[in-house]
Amino acid sequence: MPADHQEPWYPADLLALVEGYLEGLDFGADRRAAPLVEAMRYSLLAGGKRIRPVLTLATARSRGADLQSVLPTAAALELIHTYSLIHDDLPAIDDDTLRRGRATCHVVYGEDVAILAGDGLFAEAFGLVLGRQSGDAGCVLAAVTEIARATGVRGMVGGQYMDVAGLAAGGDDLTTLHTLKTGRLIEAAVVCGAVLSGAADAAPYRAFAAELGLLFQIVDDILDVAGDETELGKSVGKDVAQDKVTYVSCYGLERAASLAAESADRARTLLRKLPGDTSDLAAVTDYVHRRRH
Amino acid sequence: MPADHQEPWYPADLLALVEGYLEGLDFGADRRAAPLVEAMRYSLLAGGKRIRPVLTLATARSRGADLQSVLPTAAALELIHTYSLIHDDLPAIDDDTLRRGRATCHVVYGEDVAILAGDGLFAEAFGLVLGRQSGDAGCVLAAVTEIARATGVRGMVGGQYMDVAGLAAGGDDLTTLHTLKTGRLIEAAVVCGAVLSGAADAAPYRAFAAELGLLFQIVDDILDVAGDETELGKSVGKDVAQDKVTYVSCYGLERAASLAAESADRARTLLRKLPGDTSDLAAVTDYVHRRRH
Repeated sequence: MPADHQEPWYPADLLALVEGYLEGLDFGADRRAAPLVEAMRYSLLAGGKRIRPVLTLATARSRGADLQSVLPTAAALELIHTYSLIHDDLPAIDDDTLRRGRATCHVVYGEDVAILAGDGLFAEAFGLVLGRQSGDAGCVLAAVTEIARATGVRGMVGGQYMDVAGLAAGGDDLTTLHTLKTGRLIEAAVVCGAVLSGAADAAPYRAFAAELGLLFQIVDDILDVAGDETELGKSVGKDVAQDKVTYVSCYGLERAASLAAESADRARTLLRKLPGDTSDLAAVTDYVHRRRH
Repeated sequence: MPADHQEPWYPADLLALVEGYLEGLDFGADRRAAPLVEAMRYSLLAGGKRIRPVLTLATARSRGADLQSVLPTAAALELIHTYSLIHDDLPAIDDDTLRRGRATCHVVYGEDVAILAGDGLFAEAFGLVLGRQSGDAGCVLAAVTEIARATGVRGMVGGQYMDVAGLAAGGDDLTTLHTLKTGRLIEAAVVCGAVLSGAADAAPYRAFAAELGLLFQIVDDILDVAGDETELGKSVGKDVAQDKVTYVSCYGLERAASLAAESADRARTLLRKLPGDTSDLAAVTDYVHRRRH
């Protein structure tokens, strides 16, 4: 854990843009489906640092793009992240009752509605990109294709399965699990920001984001052991209780902290290869490393 | 129920094309996610008439389009249909143990894997259209946008919610529920076939398909009361047991059969307004009306 207990700086203007956009989302549902939308919004609007959409905006800003123009896709990534949390928290999966400081979706609305709320957020995420994202058809297609890949069996769902199946026996398996479960969506957030703002080559963005995803997960594992439940807004000690293999269980707390520091260094090196003013991306990288929740 | 107990003719060549394509699908998952893919394939390859993808192919054929060229999108609709069945069958929703003549996904693989198998099929459906559907970017975008709308809160998920919440008090509510839950995906199947084969105006296709979706549901409700469990491959009498409002509970068996016949007539009238050789679409319409499972 970092010695400095000050919360690191975070691009508040980008966070505010995302928050405002998410709050204003209207899925146009029939009044008879309003309680479903309420459950979706309950989980979606529970706060948080909105790292994925902020990364999309920060990437777009580094390329001089209009921030408003990428908001639909940025928001879509937060809808997808929320959907994955709702399904992960279900009794049949992680059986978690606390998330972002609130009772989980199924605790409040029931398991049936929570399953459908997750499904609805996933569908509406695609709807957002396809219905509201401006730009030429090729760029929009590239962004939505990136999102589909990041969420499929070679991405988030594949990683969730490995987590559920307890397949991470250590080392390589652990990295693969987290690359898929968490890393691919973080990667997609940066890559979408790049392709929507006209980047001809997404590879350097992808390389930076992949490292950032790894860093995110190492720190997440550390916080599950050393974090504060009130600050985190979710249950701590779950990994240990569920006998999960984590960076801490594999390497110990001290070595995990070193691994995080090394990953953060690699991320900063990769970030320096990107063009433009990448100070927001650097701030998010620092935040991901030094965050306390 | 129709007096004639012969199974109506069904376009077997289109069904065979779909079946072959679905069997050959490889999602390229990591070996450690192979059991998840097995669960997805278990439910996907359980047979059935593949009405949605066959409708996409039948629509494309009526427009003289190459059938192979629309297979990825056609198949995607079956992946989505299967995902919705897996989630609907979960203990927290319909708690069903029999589907397409097999134990349901969660009975075989567990609830956790079944939830993720549904999620995986949904993501891979978008992946199929975005990764493998040929045609110009505008047409592919139109198809995938149609699918996103059909599956969101103004479509399938909204209808599933209304079903779960027991909101269908009769008449109008019942029609809305089924239009969303079942009708929108059937509509999307025809509309995708039309837009991918270059239809400038999808409206007449949509009108025909919307009526076909209504017909499908009325017959489904009749079969739940009057059908044979072995032939249907799913539990019968579930609607009554769960005290659901259906066309039969609202109108009685005889009147429901008349409503089905009237709907089939309207569908055939709308079909005659479409250009080209629509004999396959007519066959599917007859099948949907006269099917016994």
